[in-house]
Amino acid sequence: MMGTPQQERWIRSIPVSTQPPSLKDNTADVDRLVKGIEKALGGEEVSIDLSLSRKISTLLREHHYHVEVILCQEHSSWHVVDILPLTETGSVYGLAVDLGTSVIAVCLLDIATGEVKEETSFLNPQIQVGPDILTRIHHAGREGGLQELQGLMVTRLNQEIRFLAERRGISTRRIVGASVAGNTTMTHLFLGLDPYWICREPYIPVLNRPGLIRASDLGLEIHERGVVFVFPNAGSYFGGDLIAGILASGMNRREEISILVDVGTNAEVVLGNKDWLVACAGAAGPALEGGVASMGMMAGPGVIDKVGIDPGTGEFQVRTIDGLAPKGICGSGMIDLAAQLYLAGMIDMRGKYVPEKCGERIRTIDEVQHLTIVFPEDSGTGEALTFSQAEIDALLRSKAAMHTILTTMIRMIHLAWKDFRKFYVAGTFGSYINPRSAIVLGMLPDLPLDTYEALGNTSLAGAARALLSLRKREEVEEIRNRVTYVEMNVNQEFMNEFSAARFIPHTDRTLFPSVP
Amino acid sequence: MMGTPQQERWIRSIPVSTQPPSLKDNTADVDRLVKGIEKALGGEEVSIDLSLSRKISTLLREHHYHVEVILCQEHSSWHVVDILPLTETGSVYGLAVDLGTSVIAVCLLDIATGEVKEETSFLNPQIQVGPDILTRIHHAGREGGLQELQGLMVTRLNQEIRFLAERRGISTRRIVGASVAGNTTMTHLFLGLDPYWICREPYIPVLNRPGLIRASDLGLEIHERGVVFVFPNAGSYFGGDLIAGILASGMNRREEISILVDVGTNAEVVLGNKDWLVACAGAAGPALEGGVASMGMMAGPGVIDKVGIDPGTGEFQVRTIDGLAPKGICGSGMIDLAAQLYLAGMIDMRGKYVPEKCGERIRTIDEVQHLTIVFPEDSGTGEALTFSQAEIDALLRSKAAMHTILTTMIRMIHLAWKDFRKFYVAGTFGSYINPRSAIVLGMLPDLPLDTYEALGNTSLAGAARALLSLRKREEVEEIRNRVTYVEMNVNQEFMNEFSAARFIPHTDRTLFPSVP
Repeated sequence: MMGTPQQERWIRSIPVSTQPPSLKDNTADVDRLVKGIEKALGGEEVSIDLSLSRKISTLLREHHYHVEVILCQEHSSWHVVDILPLTETGSVYGLAVDLGTSVIAVCLLDIATGEVKEETSFLNPQIQVGPDILTRIHHAGREGGLQELQGLMVTRLNQEIRFLAERRGISTRRIVGASVAGNTTMTHLFLGLDPYWICREPYIPVLNRPGLIRASDLGLEIHERGVVFVFPNAGSYFGGDLIAGILASGMNRREEISILVDVGTNAEVVLGNKDWLVACAGAAGPALEGGVASMGMMAGPGVIDKVGIDPGTGEFQVRTIDGLAPKGICGSGMIDLAAQLYLAGMIDMRGKYVPEKCGERIRTIDEVQHLTIVFPEDSGTGEALTFSQAEIDALLRSKAAMHTILTTMIRMIHLAWKDFRKFYVAGTFGSYINPRSAIVLGMLPDLPLDTYEALGNTSLAGAARALLSLRKREEVEEIRNRVTYVEMNVNQEFMNEFSAARFIPHTDRTLFPSVP
Repeated sequence: MMGTPQQERWIRSIPVSTQPPSLKDNTADVDRLVKGIEKALGGEEVSIDLSLSRKISTLLREHHYHVEVILCQEHSSWHVVDILPLTETGSVYGLAVDLGTSVIAVCLLDIATGEVKEETSFLNPQIQVGPDILTRIHHAGREGGLQELQGLMVTRLNQEIRFLAERRGISTRRIVGASVAGNTTMTHLFLGLDPYWICREPYIPVLNRPGLIRASDLGLEIHERGVVFVFPNAGSYFGGDLIAGILASGMNRREEISILVDVGTNAEVVLGNKDWLVACAGAAGPALEGGVASMGMMAGPGVIDKVGIDPGTGEFQVRTIDGLAPKGICGSGMIDLAAQLYLAGMIDMRGKYVPEKCGERIRTIDEVQHLTIVFPEDSGTGEALTFSQAEIDALLRSKAAMHTILTTMIRMIHLAWKDFRKFYVAGTFGSYINPRSAIVLGMLPDLPLDTYEALGNTSLAGAARALLSLRKREEVEEIRNRVTYVEMNVNQEFMNEFSAARFIPHTDRTLFPSVP
């Protein structure tokens, strides 16, 4: 990120000096300043809002015609965000925002250096209205519902913006731009656009390309004349978050074919290279009910993210985040656990517990088998942490869904796994996942381990790139226009594939030669 | 005006039909509509505000994808002002506004036909703060003064807009554009820009080119997304009103050399043709103290605008506006009167009353001679209407100032009166003036009478032209860039010339061969 060349910046802060007016040169103050800026920019066009024009005469005189000018490049011209005394030197900042359905992530960047100065994430406050997208879309249709949802999001964002600025010791007015990526519904709710038709045939968003919007029009409390770039969507089920992910991975500019899987609230998949991009997102039907991401609790201190079982002694080794006493298990921990249970013979290929292998750890509560992972004396909660047969079944449904989606997609475009050089796993979930465990379970294809790369929050990373570079901002539009969205047919063949994929690693073991 | 070709309109209302969305074409609603509009416009770029985007999905569905689209052409794209049901057919309107220091004139035009539908004028309510520009500039510098002045003007304008719309039986939302011309200070006050430096060396406006502004940013209560074109100025003493005047006269596009004189609060003069334009405005120094326009009362019912004196009988014939009993005399009436008095020998070449020629009409009140123009029994006020020696003196100072400005200007650019084919007299004052009387007095040069053409309110006429035609709107900028503004040196030569011009018609009688 820090490598983005300065000349690509669409947000800039430059010193501008003009000659004071005289009887010989009585050009108006604003026109004089605009000329000065245009000269400093090498002749590019500049526009100034009336609201800013109102204070320019005083400012120029007070500061002897030497000022700092903050600019945002719009379509055909540079928009002047503010004029400040040169003495008030300081960096200008921008925000990269990932509007997740569950979690919103925000990053404060120093525009000049490209450095991340602050980063934070918090629950999307719309969760209080409903945890899932559909509930929120319905809520938006009620009297005042849309304004409520937008207000919740923007108010919470503003609170975080103030907090970040305070922590950094800067004024929020020094934050002069933002770049926002989210799925189509979150983007609509952020913009105050009714998502009503997103979930109704023929599934039409209000808007594909929000483009550049003034911060004040959104109620976003950065500089009121700051410019907010909102990622476009390619359809109701193909949002700006995924476009940001493609941008962050760089797969759209490489010769070799890559695959990007973003496991968020839905599983979203993009395949392609510099010549073509195919995406499939969301609607994998009832198979994905509960979501891939329903697995385990959110990562946090004391949460088990890694599990090992000694095949000789049957001893469990768990690693927790921050090394605290374990109090739960997150998705990647569950995948590790299930893979280890399988390798230790404690579950069979159907995912059923093998009691004779589990020993004292297994017990039946309410007719459901539970395996003790952490005994009460080692637990952070004082109670045993267990893993039930029902949880295994749910995990296997999720992994089968993921496998089926991936298999169906590459079959649709007539490719095989060997054609892929890179397999990017995006999402917070993806950053913790152990690819080997996912392969053992049959969740991810049996590719060489170095094919896998965890990218973390690619929506946030893509937003940050577009914030720092005009070329990247323009590349977003290019990706949007280039990507082909395919609907996944949840037909008999898909369901058959899904059933076969519920086994560990799969009924067709030749697909997973590396798994014992 | 009605002749302006339809294809030059920068405000348009067009019907747009799009295909309803389907599973095969799931382009977002806004993008679908934008494509439809771009197609209807022949491929030009279109932009839609977020505020309008919010209602498009519902509108399109309610009206089965057939709507009326109202557009304003900005710089590089067409801005969508509104989307309306096709059923709600009706014209779209625009306002032409002349922001005079004393009088504001407003014209409501049907955009499609170019017809003037309503026209009105009213006192600039800022007069309550101060009748002259300087007082208002000083007032703007006080706490809240600028906002007060802007508020007065905008509130009054909004009141008239509502009134015009009501009289026309239309909604103010059908007024979707405006074109506003005023002198530099009035334009600044309208825009809420501090005119502080306009009257202080080196006399710098805040802004030369206000350009296109959204109605809502100005508080102007036409359609909130309507676009207001504000005429640029070429300097503190060369405002948009004069540029509008040049546009209205068309002198900037003709081969022959013309002169345009706008007698408003100041006397403003422009000379030139399609190759060059030279202007001189305002500051003619103390000679113009009181202003050319201080002559007489404003034209209105019962005001004398024409006077004849029978050289044989010495009988006076007066014509009043609307033929009512006379109650006062306006500027053009005074010029007629003074010329007739001179021709009848009732005043001499110094403008002094010749008592023996005046008979019973002359009397001395407080040591000042007064001539009775209308006897009490014929007057609309019940009292005699008189014309004092002091009034003649003031009139002669004004006419001398005008003559001196004109003479000095044509001398500065090395031209002679015979080089001019057209002499345009602008301003309400100019519409009533009798050129022959003005020549007799030595106010206007002794040119063939058909050289003179009264144009009326050219600021308003120019604003109307720019409202109806993009080509004219662009021509405004061209005029602004092309005109050379010359400062008039009020030096000894000017003062000598001024003294000589206080005689009727002039001390150098060879300048006025047609005057006996």
